[in-house]
Amino acid sequence: MNTILVTMPLNSRHRERLEQKAKDCKFEYIPESGIVAEDVQAADIIVGRVPPEYIRESSRLKLLQLASAGTDGYTAAGVLAERTVLTNATGAYGKSVAEHMFAMMMALQKKLHLYRDDQFNGAWNDYGEIVSIADSTVLIIGLGDIGLHFAGMAKALGAYVTGIKRRPSACPQQVDELHYMSELDQVLPKADVVFSILPNTPQTRGIYNEEFFAKMKNSAVFLNAGRGNAVDQKALAEAIRSGELAFAGLDVTDPEPLPPGHPLWQEANVFITPHASGQFHLSETLDRIVEIAAFNIEACLTGKPLKNIVDLETGYCK
Amino acid sequence: MNTILVTMPLNSRHRERLEQKAKDCKFEYIPESGIVAEDVQAADIIVGRVPPEYIRESSRLKLLQLASAGTDGYTAAGVLAERTVLTNATGAYGKSVAEHMFAMMMALQKKLHLYRDDQFNGAWNDYGEIVSIADSTVLIIGLGDIGLHFAGMAKALGAYVTGIKRRPSACPQQVDELHYMSELDQVLPKADVVFSILPNTPQTRGIYNEEFFAKMKNSAVFLNAGRGNAVDQKALAEAIRSGELAFAGLDVTDPEPLPPGHPLWQEANVFITPHASGQFHLSETLDRIVEIAAFNIEACLTGKPLKNIVDLETGYCK
Repeated sequence: MNTILVTMPLNSRHRERLEQKAKDCKFEYIPESGIVAEDVQAADIIVGRVPPEYIRESSRLKLLQLASAGTDGYTAAGVLAERTVLTNATGAYGKSVAEHMFAMMMALQKKLHLYRDDQFNGAWNDYGEIVSIADSTVLIIGLGDIGLHFAGMAKALGAYVTGIKRRPSACPQQVDELHYMSELDQVLPKADVVFSILPNTPQTRGIYNEEFFAKMKNSAVFLNAGRGNAVDQKALAEAIRSGELAFAGLDVTDPEPLPPGHPLWQEANVFITPHASGQFHLSETLDRIVEIAAFNIEACLTGKPLKNIVDLETGYCK
Repeated sequence: MNTILVTMPLNSRHRERLEQKAKDCKFEYIPESGIVAEDVQAADIIVGRVPPEYIRESSRLKLLQLASAGTDGYTAAGVLAERTVLTNATGAYGKSVAEHMFAMMMALQKKLHLYRDDQFNGAWNDYGEIVSIADSTVLIIGLGDIGLHFAGMAKALGAYVTGIKRRPSACPQQVDELHYMSELDQVLPKADVVFSILPNTPQTRGIYNEEFFAKMKNSAVFLNAGRGNAVDQKALAEAIRSGELAFAGLDVTDPEPLPPGHPLWQEANVFITPHASGQFHLSETLDRIVEIAAFNIEACLTGKPLKNIVDLETGYCK
């Protein structure tokens, strides 16, 4: 009998949904914080996060279904055995993350962050000039589920949307112009908003550096919801301070949590949220993850093709 | 020769645009702060704000073209002579005000205001559950230019839009359901967002009171960009404190500026901006006002019908 370890917080409706896909299996529901190595070693299928060091290339583990889009910690050598399939929750977070970042973008364009900073002092200050999303060129770096959702919102409100994709494909309908990373220099100087949603891979570390920010418009907004280490945070703070870049909105930082004394917290034109755009904050997100997990559990048990299989080399879905 | 007094801040391109419509007129450009009563009394046409008490039913004044949508102070008895036509800038502010309020709404739905409050303390706190604009029912009270622009944005991002209009009309395409004020009780309890954009008239004073907030969902957002005195601010603060209402976003208050010691500033779930949604903060707004003024100056001088004529009784455009 297969044992399925579930560490995500599920309600009874969610549990039923999973259990009906795996009638002969034993389900263990243990919150992530209560997991011990033995639980992980006893599992044939895991749904949710477990400490990667507990896996130790478990030869029993057939499927690790993450509840996140990010796969940090699981793609390293010595974690997963060759037979274990890693799947993520790509597709579950598009709406939640895109809307959060879109709200941040609009707040920054309207200088709402500065008005908020004055509120508790009772200061009726006017910060003048603002810009409109309808007049903006929005560059999205990473056109997966989240990037495409963001693109759709921007286009619906009148923006001109350019997108950068890793692999050749037809231009999605939410995007006006599609480019490759090699064409970045061509599109970056035209962007009023840059939204990055890249996973954590060796190729993405520190790519948002001094040179990158120098190529952006001085009036532009930079947004990151991928992984914090894609940004050279010192260079970002410097670009904001020098006026090279107007605003930044970050839902991810390096490290996380960002330590209380970190200088980035003090930059008024950087708006930081604590990796809050996704999580399970939108109830629909959890419903979607459960659907992906249910599909993959059934596929794994019956030998059918799984969805959202992560390529351990690139960190992206295959 | 007619004298045209302009108190709005105009660049040379804007001035040319007005002057080409009134070739035989004398233009006086005096900033609002530098106006004396004689300037007002010498004017046949005024474009922009002047102190209402300087007008004193001037028998010379044919047209007062405001640069605002609001007409406070000019509709009172003893200000305008019967022959003076009052026109406002309805149509110029739709984009600017609607986008500002939409940004506020999204910020509140995503709890960005709470995250911002933690930023300078370096606190990595998570505020949990949020809602989506795409799942929201948005009620717009006042379907003029601004209300319709807001409706269009909400609908474009997937919201269900209900609207309340004073006068019977066909349902605008941006609106899913059109109602009259008398049907408020029917639509208010269903709204996740209420956006009010009503002018200051005797009928609108204090209409957002304890009873109104009690009928709203506990999870809802209330937004006001009309006039501050439409809201019973004590009742609003009480509704927020008691959890009867989740969030409020106000770009208008009563009085303005809101005094530094006013208790409303201290409500964390009220987001206040200093009547900043309009002004001339979006450069396009000024262009649009100049177009309205140019049209009305020409119409006034040649005896053609003007646009945006304000009904002094209702405060609305006729």
